[in-house]
Amino acid sequence: MRMSRYFLPVLRETPAEAQIASHRLMLRSGMIQQASAGIYSWMPLGRRVLGKLETIIHEEQAAAGHIPILMPTLQPAALWQESGRYDDYGQEMLRITDRQGRHLLYGPTNEELVTDIFRGHVKSYRNLPLTLYHIQWKFRDEIRPRFGIMRGREFLMKDGYNFDVDEASAVHAYNRHLVSYLRTYQRMGLKAIPMRADTGPIGGKLSHEFLVLADTGESELFFDSNILELGLGDSDIDYDSREACASVFDRWTQQYARTDETHDPDHFARHVPAVRQRRSRGIEVGQIFYFGTKYSEPMDACVNDASGQRVPVHMGSHGIGVSRLVGAIIEANHDDKGIVWPEPVAPFAVGVINLKPDNEEVSAVCEDLCVRLEAQGLEPLYDDTDDRAGSKFTTMDLIGLPWRLTVGPRSLAAGELELTCRRDGRTFNCAPEEAIGRLTDIYGVK
Amino acid sequence: MRMSRYFLPVLRETPAEAQIASHRLMLRSGMIQQASAGIYSWMPLGRRVLGKLETIIHEEQAAAGHIPILMPTLQPAALWQESGRYDDYGQEMLRITDRQGRHLLYGPTNEELVTDIFRGHVKSYRNLPLTLYHIQWKFRDEIRPRFGIMRGREFLMKDGYNFDVDEASAVHAYNRHLVSYLRTYQRMGLKAIPMRADTGPIGGKLSHEFLVLADTGESELFFDSNILELGLGDSDIDYDSREACASVFDRWTQQYARTDETHDPDHFARHVPAVRQRRSRGIEVGQIFYFGTKYSEPMDACVNDASGQRVPVHMGSHGIGVSRLVGAIIEANHDDKGIVWPEPVAPFAVGVINLKPDNEEVSAVCEDLCVRLEAQGLEPLYDDTDDRAGSKFTTMDLIGLPWRLTVGPRSLAAGELELTCRRDGRTFNCAPEEAIGRLTDIYGVK
Repeated sequence: MRMSRYFLPVLRETPAEAQIASHRLMLRSGMIQQASAGIYSWMPLGRRVLGKLETIIHEEQAAAGHIPILMPTLQPAALWQESGRYDDYGQEMLRITDRQGRHLLYGPTNEELVTDIFRGHVKSYRNLPLTLYHIQWKFRDEIRPRFGIMRGREFLMKDGYNFDVDEASAVHAYNRHLVSYLRTYQRMGLKAIPMRADTGPIGGKLSHEFLVLADTGESELFFDSNILELGLGDSDIDYDSREACASVFDRWTQQYARTDETHDPDHFARHVPAVRQRRSRGIEVGQIFYFGTKYSEPMDACVNDASGQRVPVHMGSHGIGVSRLVGAIIEANHDDKGIVWPEPVAPFAVGVINLKPDNEEVSAVCEDLCVRLEAQGLEPLYDDTDDRAGSKFTTMDLIGLPWRLTVGPRSLAAGELELTCRRDGRTFNCAPEEAIGRLTDIYGVK
Repeated sequence: MRMSRYFLPVLRETPAEAQIASHRLMLRSGMIQQASAGIYSWMPLGRRVLGKLETIIHEEQAAAGHIPILMPTLQPAALWQESGRYDDYGQEMLRITDRQGRHLLYGPTNEELVTDIFRGHVKSYRNLPLTLYHIQWKFRDEIRPRFGIMRGREFLMKDGYNFDVDEASAVHAYNRHLVSYLRTYQRMGLKAIPMRADTGPIGGKLSHEFLVLADTGESELFFDSNILELGLGDSDIDYDSREACASVFDRWTQQYARTDETHDPDHFARHVPAVRQRRSRGIEVGQIFYFGTKYSEPMDACVNDASGQRVPVHMGSHGIGVSRLVGAIIEANHDDKGIVWPEPVAPFAVGVINLKPDNEEVSAVCEDLCVRLEAQGLEPLYDDTDDRAGSKFTTMDLIGLPWRLTVGPRSLAAGELELTCRRDGRTFNCAPEEAIGRLTDIYGVK
């Protein structure tokens, strides 16, 4: 993409209203613009990051055998009256009356709607297990929206729902989701820690939140430092294996890790050696629930089990805050010059800076470079504008593409260009061919 | 995808409420389910088709140099008060009051919001031309939602907005969109005809609708049959060339083609030879507008032109009804057995039917076939269930995958399987290798 034809509305000043780094940097790098309190438009750069996150989520959901659907944003109030949550949900639910006087709401979550879909079609345990999910906009009418998209009102969420014939199978679905979420965050370049959580308005008895360590996090965290050493390995897991999923679940949850909401100071002091006690702040980026028959019973979502008996299905739900993740990734990956995207979620793989756009040879090399990068599946953002060099570097640092290629007449005379790493500033002088080779290796494309 | 793990809630009976083919077939093939009047959930199969359409639209928008953003579904009323449309829009606009008493609305279109984004950042003609678009859910509170997703209330739309320094440049944007839309519909396997249209609540002086011929269309069409002969050619167009775009515009719009709303019976009778006069019905699948400074003036969206003078930008807007297109494609592509997807928008490239899932050899061949198809980028839907053969064929015909591979012990004994075309029933007996080769050719993958 040529910068001269792109829409990258960067700001030179720091917006006064932004209190945290991600909000500040998303405004400054032209990723978002507020439409009204807690409601944002995603500018081209921001939208690209959202798209990368969605792709990773879809791929990991597919690997776990979960099936994508797409439910609408507006839901009928009647379904929430069936489950009993219409009155319980309080003022965070945006209630709407249409021109016919029918009561609708902007979905804050979808347990009722997906249960309604399920009960209309599935009648036998033979069609289970089944996990349906979607990535769709949600609305929660926060009393004090703040921190940009981190605590917005209209937000993008992946929410999934499992339907199982009994508790053992539903617990496997729970464990499978824990594994799949850990892998999803890992692919985004994040270390997310699962922590025992309260269930809140979703309900049920078992829940874990996933927290990313960041000084600006809204939650206080208490954990055993052993958990920081845990990995997932590179090899694929057999998601159908109850044992394999349970073993990952056990490894990750046997270490003490709690938020301030569930923290047990006595237990922490007694059972975690002082040298391993960690206290930190974190950002919640997902949560999983097992709530049994809380919705299937009142909504009569039943199947015939193997013995022919009609039983309510066991359900759980699972959410990843997609738009919020963009903020969390920035909180965990920035410096005083701007954002530092991890490669897998970067809006463009590499920035190409033309130091002399009026020099034909330099421009020809830059354009050839872009064509070859694109052919490798490495999307470049090509700064072909006539801004001065300093301003180009400042913008590239601000928007945080992981790698930068700088092409100017002096280095080109020696047949070279500069390849620079955004994270640590390392610079390699090399031929264009070698630079493309390095980037191809880094991004793991063939 | 294995059918035994998929969620394909087909209906054997024809739903009573569905009056037109696409609504009936989308319900029967398990593509959609109503959530409330005019609001639908997209089941896995339907969601896949939506995804294919979105991909084609994004690719064609990128080719034309348009930049994707993502605006929210909810908009502040204040912006619509600025343009003067808040009171004009009437009851089709879903008006919402949040917990703080602020007035919001569920966007039926986005001229105001995108103009607000533009005016906050762009100050010079040097940053023009600029076309921003998004694909996002919209809401129009239809008094009588009907025909399934064809006249729904919550619907998916691609809407784009061009910003240009003067009328000549904006007319080029208009022509460019006409070309790009024609190519988009062509890639979806549709013949869409641009027809002079009224501008309605969007406003302005120039507008064309795109109509697909279908007996069930809501509009009556009058046109010169010459227009059916027009093609776009396979070669790329230079979207930057005003002449190239204007020439396509001229060729397609010089023939008489009007809907009942703009039809001029005298002109039609006098200037179109009787033998070329066609009268038909059609479905609107898109519309483009040029409305000059209708929004930029009241909203003060100005740039400095080349002479340094501050002038309001010239704008147009352009919409493709993405969810409605799914219905339009089905109306134009079905028979009495079900849907007949054009290859480019089919939810899966090919259906694989295992006639004997309990036969190890047959199953091994099917599974190998699926792996090899996937490796070619041809997604198969594999019916591995133990339903009887007749039921499997009925379902495949209903959901309308363009090609079917049937594997059974008898043909396999001769080293063959059956490749069947859904549209005309042609069947080829051939080795698996040859079947894959044919499909690879048909879908144009390498």
